[in-house]
Amino acid sequence: MSGRGAERPPGRTGRRPGASDTRSRILEAARAGFGETGFDATTIRGIAARAGVDPALVHHYFGSKQQLFVAAMELPVDLDTVVPALLAGPPDELGYRIVRFILELWGAPRTRPLMLGVVRSAASDPVAAGLLRRILTEGPFAAIAKAIDRPDAELRATLVGSQLVGLAMARHIVCAEPLASAPDEVLARAVGPTIQRYLTGELADAEHAPPTVG
Amino acid sequence: MSGRGAERPPGRTGRRPGASDTRSRILEAARAGFGETGFDATTIRGIAARAGVDPALVHHYFGSKQQLFVAAMELPVDLDTVVPALLAGPPDELGYRIVRFILELWGAPRTRPLMLGVVRSAASDPVAAGLLRRILTEGPFAAIAKAIDRPDAELRATLVGSQLVGLAMARHIVCAEPLASAPDEVLARAVGPTIQRYLTGELADAEHAPPTVG
Repeated sequence: MSGRGAERPPGRTGRRPGASDTRSRILEAARAGFGETGFDATTIRGIAARAGVDPALVHHYFGSKQQLFVAAMELPVDLDTVVPALLAGPPDELGYRIVRFILELWGAPRTRPLMLGVVRSAASDPVAAGLLRRILTEGPFAAIAKAIDRPDAELRATLVGSQLVGLAMARHIVCAEPLASAPDEVLARAVGPTIQRYLTGELADAEHAPPTVG
Repeated sequence: MSGRGAERPPGRTGRRPGASDTRSRILEAARAGFGETGFDATTIRGIAARAGVDPALVHHYFGSKQQLFVAAMELPVDLDTVVPALLAGPPDELGYRIVRFILELWGAPRTRPLMLGVVRSAASDPVAAGLLRRILTEGPFAAIAKAIDRPDAELRATLVGSQLVGLAMARHIVCAEPLASAPDEVLARAVGPTIQRYLTGELADAEHAPPTVG
């Protein structure tokens, strides 16, 4: 889904030499910029400066800032590979595996700025909010919830997303201690059962809550 | 903690007539502005226009935009009242009561723009992030976790905060359906047990996770 910025085999592309390097330099600079300052405070001019190109070239390749954002923030996650891999393994450790997987994406230098950019920007920009909405409602959690096939799969998927987005906010953006510096393993064991219950458990908690009216 | 904007009994304040009305009009406008567009995109000029006053008056009363933000976003929540009220009642429904309480704050016209403003702005502005950090680490969840007195109270409090901030993000900012329109009662029953476990349960989940190394 990405990797377009990697070494281009010489003579094996129809593109004008240099065009693909420029594109990928701009995408790299956009990821860094949106990740550091969010959508609103990041400018085409700043991204162009970081990439060492003229702002006009950014517009030429990507159009508007919003179009650039969507192009740059696409997560290098292949659902067709990731979802079966997460579903494989002991069923009662699924929640744990999902949390580990997400924490690894947050920890990896390639994906961390992307995810920071999406979460930061979603709070203030409708396009970024739409991107995060799509990730929560059509991304890996939705695919996993659908595969598990319990009632209310869509609600389950968005509950999972709410906990994992909140974990990212509290940890990487708000930096609330001791959560922010807790080791991944501690968090996966603390939050894994939450994800497990949202996906496979009873959502209504008939035992511990007053009955609904109506 | 608030209520300063309510009807002022005539002749019972030392303030110059009108000053307190102006202050509270500005605070009201600031809450609405920060709630709608977040810290970055909200300007003193815009807040002044909304309040029908000169921008210089906003600076006169509140100093910088950041100082105005902190003044406007103070939640009208009295910890000395709220914490004992939440702790009273059946201990195994504590998580449910906390979620209901937070959902009521999100639903109330007086507190909703405040909370939207804090969460939206925290994603892009360090001052707002600091305010949310204080709420998560020194607010009601911390006081409740301390009162319950299980090991790792600080981690428990921030885990609670992570789920409730994420719920707000997913519901009110990202608007991920069906979570966004799920009734409060459904959410309190779905998320209550998460909060209950973070505060009172086993965090390490010894049963379902691989043993930690070291």
